[in-house]
Amino acid sequence: MAAESAYVPPVSDYAFLYREAFGLDLVDRATGGELSADDAIEIIAGAGEFAASVLAPLHTVGDRVGARLVDGDVRLPDGFAEAYQAFVEAGWITAEAPVTAGGDGLPGVVRAGLGEIWNASNAAFALCWLLTAGQIHALDAAASDQIRETYLTKLVSGRWTGTMNLTEPDAGTDLGAIRTIATPRDDGTWGISGQKIFITWGDHDIAENIVHLVLARTPDAPAGAKGLSLFVAPRLLVNDDGSLGDRNAITTVAIEHKLGIHGSPTCVLAYEDATGYLVGEVGGGLAGMFVMMNSARTEMGFQATGIADRAYQQAAGYAAQRVQGAVIDRPAGTPIAEHPDVCRLLLSMSSRIFAMRALGVHTADLFDRDETALAEFFVPILKGWTTEDAVAVTSDAIQVHGGMGFIEETGAAQHYRDARIMPIYEGTTAIQSNDLVGRKVVRDRGATAEVLFGRIEQTIAQLQRQEHPVAARTAERLTRAVAASRRATASVLGFAAAPRDAYAVSVPYLMLLGTLAGGWMHALAVVAVLAHDGSSDEDAARLTSADFYGAHHLPRVHMLAETVAAGEIG
Amino acid sequence: MAAESAYVPPVSDYAFLYREAFGLDLVDRATGGELSADDAIEIIAGAGEFAASVLAPLHTVGDRVGARLVDGDVRLPDGFAEAYQAFVEAGWITAEAPVTAGGDGLPGVVRAGLGEIWNASNAAFALCWLLTAGQIHALDAAASDQIRETYLTKLVSGRWTGTMNLTEPDAGTDLGAIRTIATPRDDGTWGISGQKIFITWGDHDIAENIVHLVLARTPDAPAGAKGLSLFVAPRLLVNDDGSLGDRNAITTVAIEHKLGIHGSPTCVLAYEDATGYLVGEVGGGLAGMFVMMNSARTEMGFQATGIADRAYQQAAGYAAQRVQGAVIDRPAGTPIAEHPDVCRLLLSMSSRIFAMRALGVHTADLFDRDETALAEFFVPILKGWTTEDAVAVTSDAIQVHGGMGFIEETGAAQHYRDARIMPIYEGTTAIQSNDLVGRKVVRDRGATAEVLFGRIEQTIAQLQRQEHPVAARTAERLTRAVAASRRATASVLGFAAAPRDAYAVSVPYLMLLGTLAGGWMHALAVVAVLAHDGSSDEDAARLTSADFYGAHHLPRVHMLAETVAAGEIG
Repeated sequence: MAAESAYVPPVSDYAFLYREAFGLDLVDRATGGELSADDAIEIIAGAGEFAASVLAPLHTVGDRVGARLVDGDVRLPDGFAEAYQAFVEAGWITAEAPVTAGGDGLPGVVRAGLGEIWNASNAAFALCWLLTAGQIHALDAAASDQIRETYLTKLVSGRWTGTMNLTEPDAGTDLGAIRTIATPRDDGTWGISGQKIFITWGDHDIAENIVHLVLARTPDAPAGAKGLSLFVAPRLLVNDDGSLGDRNAITTVAIEHKLGIHGSPTCVLAYEDATGYLVGEVGGGLAGMFVMMNSARTEMGFQATGIADRAYQQAAGYAAQRVQGAVIDRPAGTPIAEHPDVCRLLLSMSSRIFAMRALGVHTADLFDRDETALAEFFVPILKGWTTEDAVAVTSDAIQVHGGMGFIEETGAAQHYRDARIMPIYEGTTAIQSNDLVGRKVVRDRGATAEVLFGRIEQTIAQLQRQEHPVAARTAERLTRAVAASRRATASVLGFAAAPRDAYAVSVPYLMLLGTLAGGWMHALAVVAVLAHDGSSDEDAARLTSADFYGAHHLPRVHMLAETVAAGEIG
Repeated sequence: MAAESAYVPPVSDYAFLYREAFGLDLVDRATGGELSADDAIEIIAGAGEFAASVLAPLHTVGDRVGARLVDGDVRLPDGFAEAYQAFVEAGWITAEAPVTAGGDGLPGVVRAGLGEIWNASNAAFALCWLLTAGQIHALDAAASDQIRETYLTKLVSGRWTGTMNLTEPDAGTDLGAIRTIATPRDDGTWGISGQKIFITWGDHDIAENIVHLVLARTPDAPAGAKGLSLFVAPRLLVNDDGSLGDRNAITTVAIEHKLGIHGSPTCVLAYEDATGYLVGEVGGGLAGMFVMMNSARTEMGFQATGIADRAYQQAAGYAAQRVQGAVIDRPAGTPIAEHPDVCRLLLSMSSRIFAMRALGVHTADLFDRDETALAEFFVPILKGWTTEDAVAVTSDAIQVHGGMGFIEETGAAQHYRDARIMPIYEGTTAIQSNDLVGRKVVRDRGATAEVLFGRIEQTIAQLQRQEHPVAARTAERLTRAVAASRRATASVLGFAAAPRDAYAVSVPYLMLLGTLAGGWMHALAVVAVLAHDGSSDEDAARLTSADFYGAHHLPRVHMLAETVAAGEIG
């Protein structure tokens, strides 16, 4: 039986991405010289060491024991509270929080790496951090000084954690259907009543207090999303002196039995005239939530990369030691990693993971540099495409294990189960694709898409100046892929009069652009590798990965372009 | 919360396949007039009714409670033993067994439908039947009269069940590494010692006795697969008068904790000088096992279709009743089934399922008619392609449910978990693809592949004689797909001097041919529908399904052809 593999943080990939892949020191540019790539790599390596030693060992127990509801309170497995305290004390929450909120304000490109590492080592644990980080951004953008003082400082210090309370039984994708009511009280607070479901880390025992950010409807508010306001409602009420008081009237009714991420408690919360505090303006709830959305969706790209990489590492480790049968053209005793089809699976996984990781860094970099149009263009692509591809990678990881992959103790199945929520939460792939087609492509008549295609063509021109066969093949493949993507974009724009047709192929179109962007990331890597002599083992591996992606994944663009062109269904 | 969906047997699809899709009464041809399509449909409908009322209700409890090891014996959840007895009494095991073994000898095309139905209603239960049916074939081909009398009759009657004991901790794909020893005894029996793993239904409490078919090595046997012989070893020894005696020295050491099919006990069995009886010749073990292999692998195609269809039915049922948000161009209160992307997911699933189902019937028909070369050509394709596609279908079914899909109580996750073993057991997809490339394509220099392409071109010619736009589009798409498949076949043949390259792209090649064959099945459906007026709702749905498959799935052939042409990896 395979023991659970250790987690090895992808420091060398981040070093390559920060220093070389984009042709300059990304971190230096993002921070105006305050930090260099070398500094960032040190941070990444430190995070990786922390994650591997503190978070990764709780990955399995989080799944097997999971979060449990005991007498109305959620309990995490032994070790989670200590790990959270160590995480806080090491300063990781503060490090990532914006300077305006009292954090260290690490740039997005570094947060991309950290996000991947927390999620790879322990995705269930990372969700607690992810929701807290999201709430920090939301409060930093909209909260009053009093809320900042009382709540935001505690979140940034890591002493309290945060949640997002949006979904209700009949209000998932359609937030306009929210029925939770917030009624003003004479003392300026609000009484919140209603039921919220799918509340990630909605209750737990690993920090002192929990701050719920709640979307609710005020009395006489207009129907639909315009009637929603945002409130802070703490698990334990906070006294005027900042000390913790009584339990707020928020009950954990149930926790969900899920396919995966069992270590992340998914709660049903009942609000019964619970005390809340308005954040921002009445009726400004959805705007407040949108602040978090780009960040949370981008973060999903890092989670997808992390879960996929952990699954890959486990499969690669198993294949490197497992001996079974003769391997064609190799001596007896050669492990299965050299079976041609196992090579294929492992390269399929690793080449996808590099593409995801690089696009995550590139998107973060665009945000760091306020190149907003292209950054926001990539958000739904990153969220939708990486999460779908990550599910495929975790499936491949099971396949590499053969029959052992189906046995829970092996651990491969956990990644597969954990991964499956990613294309659903923070907006399903369909929601991402509607955002992409509606707001990012049709609205500007394809102008931003054309910016992307133009940049890819610049990379193709760089490839064409190289003599190397991988550069030549990559340029040729990418040229055809850009042409197919332009045709697909024209198809989408052509459906403007029949939007059902556009939305019928919006997911294929999203996957097409994600696949294309992944090919571009590999092309940038080829250019960077060939800019120095390109002869180290690591360089050779990057060229092989790019070549494999070009032969096995990039051709999907042509398949999807044909699908997009077909449009309407049924 | 969605209740688990009822199971609706796909009677109308089998009626279409038996009567129309292949241009004649398949059942009449297969049985030389003994049975007609009408008879077969009655059998399918009866099986469907039985499965829906007796087997389907145990699908969930099989997963939640699962098989448990209690004091050394495996216990199934309440209801399994009664369901098995009802299954036996209804005569389903006898119905499918060959006439030579004392069964009713239903033709393969009907067994295809039955196999799907048992697996759709309860895949975990169906595995018990599947292994028993396989053993019936193996013993019918090779066993002595005494073994036939003592064991085969009991298996055919359904009173005892059968298992296959191949795998050992270091002998999975590589059966030549088997170490279990069978030593001859003076009384003509054999003493079997060793450990077998992954034994499906290796112990249970739903029938009187269990007959293990064991692959073991005799003393002084040659190394590798040639040294293996086949033995029957019963759980309870059988007295000379046929009554049941003591427990044989076979211990259930453990049952596996698996990702899915929890209702199917997967056992670790320890043989400690257990009594066994030789089947066939010493050293003829692997040949005996190969008898079962075509049948078991074909059967996997029916399981894939069944699990995929059950997942589809649940998703379609949920989407038809769930109302959430506004649906573009549809009135308020329209359920999510009319969201363009939900339409896309549902059509993606159902068009794949029809393709799988039809190819399963076609493969069975080729075996029924002893068109062995093409039948055996399809075996690895059917096994590899349908099981991989079925996993994708179960993933889509989760996606249709949104967040509810990730909650175990919804039931969608079970299909996803159950399905994941299919591309692994009975030979992984890589093993299937090696069989396809090595034995079915390279060995005859592509001659059988060319027979397939020629038949598809006959269907294209039929489509071209129609005026209907779906026929025109299908013909055009299929023409390009056949051309790409010919190129891919030439690529594979071109790798003959570098077999590692061929095996590096053998899975993509298998998926290409499966996808192409699926497109052909839809094309046959288009021809059949347009042969009558083609205006009923069912006809329209078949045309839509074919058109969707052609736009969304068939283009994968072009992607895979590019991958296959690239050959070598790394």
